[in-house]
Amino acid sequence: MVFLERAARFCRDRTSVVYGSLEYKWGETHQRCLKLASSLSLLGISRGDVVATLSPNVPAMYELHFAVPMAGAIISTLNSRLDAAMVSVLLEHSQAKILFVDYQLLEVARSALDLLRKRTSSKLPILVLIADSEHDSEFDSNIDTTSVSYEYEMLVANGESGFEIVRPKSELDPISVNYTSGTTSRPKGVVYSHRGAYLNSLATVLLFRMDQFPVYLWTVPMFHCNGWCLPWGVAAQFGTNICLRKVRPKDIFYNVTNYKVTHLGGAPTVFNMIVNSTSIDRKPINHKVITVAGGAPPPPQILAKMEELGFTVSQLYGLTETYGPGTSCVWKPEWDLLVPQERSRIKARQGIPHVCLDEIDIKDPETMESVPNDGKTIGEVMFRGNTVMSGYLRDSKATKDAFKGGWFHSGDLGVRHQDGYIEIKDRLKDIIISGGENISSVEVETVLYSHPAVLEAAVVARPDNHWGQTPCAFVKLKEGYDDIDAQEMINFCRDHMPHYMAPKTVIFQDIPKTSTGKIQKYVLREKAKELGSIS
Amino acid sequence: MVFLERAARFCRDRTSVVYGSLEYKWGETHQRCLKLASSLSLLGISRGDVVATLSPNVPAMYELHFAVPMAGAIISTLNSRLDAAMVSVLLEHSQAKILFVDYQLLEVARSALDLLRKRTSSKLPILVLIADSEHDSEFDSNIDTTSVSYEYEMLVANGESGFEIVRPKSELDPISVNYTSGTTSRPKGVVYSHRGAYLNSLATVLLFRMDQFPVYLWTVPMFHCNGWCLPWGVAAQFGTNICLRKVRPKDIFYNVTNYKVTHLGGAPTVFNMIVNSTSIDRKPINHKVITVAGGAPPPPQILAKMEELGFTVSQLYGLTETYGPGTSCVWKPEWDLLVPQERSRIKARQGIPHVCLDEIDIKDPETMESVPNDGKTIGEVMFRGNTVMSGYLRDSKATKDAFKGGWFHSGDLGVRHQDGYIEIKDRLKDIIISGGENISSVEVETVLYSHPAVLEAAVVARPDNHWGQTPCAFVKLKEGYDDIDAQEMINFCRDHMPHYMAPKTVIFQDIPKTSTGKIQKYVLREKAKELGSIS
Repeated sequence: MVFLERAARFCRDRTSVVYGSLEYKWGETHQRCLKLASSLSLLGISRGDVVATLSPNVPAMYELHFAVPMAGAIISTLNSRLDAAMVSVLLEHSQAKILFVDYQLLEVARSALDLLRKRTSSKLPILVLIADSEHDSEFDSNIDTTSVSYEYEMLVANGESGFEIVRPKSELDPISVNYTSGTTSRPKGVVYSHRGAYLNSLATVLLFRMDQFPVYLWTVPMFHCNGWCLPWGVAAQFGTNICLRKVRPKDIFYNVTNYKVTHLGGAPTVFNMIVNSTSIDRKPINHKVITVAGGAPPPPQILAKMEELGFTVSQLYGLTETYGPGTSCVWKPEWDLLVPQERSRIKARQGIPHVCLDEIDIKDPETMESVPNDGKTIGEVMFRGNTVMSGYLRDSKATKDAFKGGWFHSGDLGVRHQDGYIEIKDRLKDIIISGGENISSVEVETVLYSHPAVLEAAVVARPDNHWGQTPCAFVKLKEGYDDIDAQEMINFCRDHMPHYMAPKTVIFQDIPKTSTGKIQKYVLREKAKELGSIS
Repeated sequence: MVFLERAARFCRDRTSVVYGSLEYKWGETHQRCLKLASSLSLLGISRGDVVATLSPNVPAMYELHFAVPMAGAIISTLNSRLDAAMVSVLLEHSQAKILFVDYQLLEVARSALDLLRKRTSSKLPILVLIADSEHDSEFDSNIDTTSVSYEYEMLVANGESGFEIVRPKSELDPISVNYTSGTTSRPKGVVYSHRGAYLNSLATVLLFRMDQFPVYLWTVPMFHCNGWCLPWGVAAQFGTNICLRKVRPKDIFYNVTNYKVTHLGGAPTVFNMIVNSTSIDRKPINHKVITVAGGAPPPPQILAKMEELGFTVSQLYGLTETYGPGTSCVWKPEWDLLVPQERSRIKARQGIPHVCLDEIDIKDPETMESVPNDGKTIGEVMFRGNTVMSGYLRDSKATKDAFKGGWFHSGDLGVRHQDGYIEIKDRLKDIIISGGENISSVEVETVLYSHPAVLEAAVVARPDNHWGQTPCAFVKLKEGYDDIDAQEMINFCRDHMPHYMAPKTVIFQDIPKTSTGKIQKYVLREKAKELGSIS
């Protein structure tokens, strides 16, 4: 929030937030946040309380990233695609005092509170509705405001702009709690500190190569690792935030060209969306747009197409537990001279720790020994430093396990290349062990993606009486390729990789994903399990 | 030093340091620093000891910025233009255990030790000679190595590259002590912490708008505020350091064009040097060179000429006590549309605090009230935050005075403009009070600089029986303008500013300066005093 105060003081009249026809200046954003913080205080929010949100990337989400900490509280941005049951579990776990909810998600929130009411005698969170002046008509006609206690703009309007900010007592005080995106059943609340958020904001700015006055398009959900800490980072660089309710190809191209967007980030789904957009949605891009991919490594084909369309792509890797960005594939100028294939190979690497992360290592999780720099030996990726979470909220067992041996265990498997750059090979639980050989599901997927008919692919282990496990591929085909059969796909794989690595099963279907675009491999693993053994 | 380890790990084969025909890679620089640290340890250096240097910007100076802290010690980079008496005073005050000395400064160092020997019975610092392979012949023929205990390259060669770094116990542990450049008689040792140096390195990188892989030309002495923390900052961005023994126009143009230098910094003297260079020394610059001016505000005429020659100039302001850079005049794109005169006016401002400085304010030093944003009311510039010194070494009285009221008092007088940007009007002790009116010596100097014949100008107070004080100008004329007399200069000033502000005395002479290019106003004040009253 010191970044916001600085932006307001010295760039008062520069645009801070744009959303449809709405536009705020830094001076206004600062005033609005102060007033909101003052209203939070009046509602009884004090040091250490949790304030939850359930919202897409509208301006209120941006403001809450400042206003909640200004009131001394902890922001918990819930995934906007969760169902009522999960929302109620997370509200109960975080003991949130207030829930800010977008008007389109009001039903989910209300149902969550109903569930909560049945389960507990504790006080329920106060419900604050975030209306949307850009979508007035929808709001007026459909919204039933039962159980809503306040409306967002009223809290802003009624607050005091002279509010005295509740500063953290220690820089290690929590600023936010982010629930992991839930490919497992028991969600964990990842706690960020003021110190970590401050440093990660600066590191992300440097990693994005953000100069002064960036224009940032919000294609990464702010509920996801607090938008990689960029709500704070964009303020530090006096930038402009372009908010988006929905991420659609048309909106991306419109905003990028209309506001001369300098930076955007995204999960592979966002990249797929851009690459597979129709010519009606596209607009020619005549300026530099730095695009940072997070989540899972985008296949080389996607990377190449993004660059054709005018986006400079770089890649980062991290987890909720590392404040989002942990490493990035810093591109060395000398690599420009390599052949395209070689360039793609390097671009798929996760790279090196950002400047504020103390250490990253790849270790044998049993012995805690580092793997050699040979690009082959697989170990678990581990982190250490200021931008690693404080711990899991009210879960000392999980915290202890995660930090076994003094390092944060990511659960990701990777190798380290000769130049020190790391490359993720798989999630610890996604590796397939067939006849004693480790098969990286990511490598099989990369080959599948190189087939012209494949839109999306995911590979998991299928239990096998003879081999132990065999690779099982789930594939979504592009339109117009319905004539391709499983055997053809298997043959293609066998032509492009060692036979033992090629899938023995190929199933054509939609790929299930979490709201942050992560493929839900546990769903696919269940399905593969049900298939039983081939042998 | 974490920045160095990261650079060595991930950019091992990229060029770290260039000096004449000498070139190191980051892997080598890291190894050399480890070995040097190990040798320092063997020489008995341990946590908290001071290691001093007396050297220009040669590679050893760069390496010592890492090696000394790696050994747990504190680096004290002495101004290379000090005389033996002053060096002996500073060595005694810092209780330095080792003095690293450049071969050209060996006589000064030896005399300083002789003086020290006479004054104290304490153990003298060990003398380590930094030879210069780029200037071999000079070295071989002239150097008398009496009292030299070790040679720099021997310490590097004999060290252990497996040395275990002595990490600070607390991030607030001191990393360096910098003596203020001594326009006053009693030098003060400004203590920097690891935490402050880390944050100021990142802030300076952002302030310089340094992308990855910068090429930095060392025109700012590393002994000056640890080179504004850029020895560490350039490592953080995997850049290349171009070292320079002497800063001369020819060397600047040669290096800028030959190595495609992206950034350089400098005091006004460096800018004067560039602007007044001859066509023989100049080379056409076809790439962007970000040039940051520190020290004193360069006159608008100099700024304009720099840009003509191909340098993009921005300005920073700070003191030794603020780790060098404290503020910078962040340039807003909309200002590009202003008329040149208006642009120059803004460019002369000191601007806004950098991203890691918590707060800057302009206050009445008596009441500690902030001045209004009116661009007129003069107050004292005050700082607060992580990148403000820990205190003065062994001088609790001076530390207490400097931090009176919880803010660091800069001793500089300034105003705050309507947009929050600050502008320094004068040093507290340089303001001239004539007939009860405050006259900013800087404003008078700016008018003098706008005269085509003026190369350098400095204005101080001359005591006056009637007015109290009157402005007295010292002027150095450009070659070929010897026919100009004092009255003509006075008339010119009266034509361009209120009469009461125009100098009543003009003296043509060389302007005395400190080695960092600061004009020694106290020398001029003495001279003006001797002149006595006009009235």
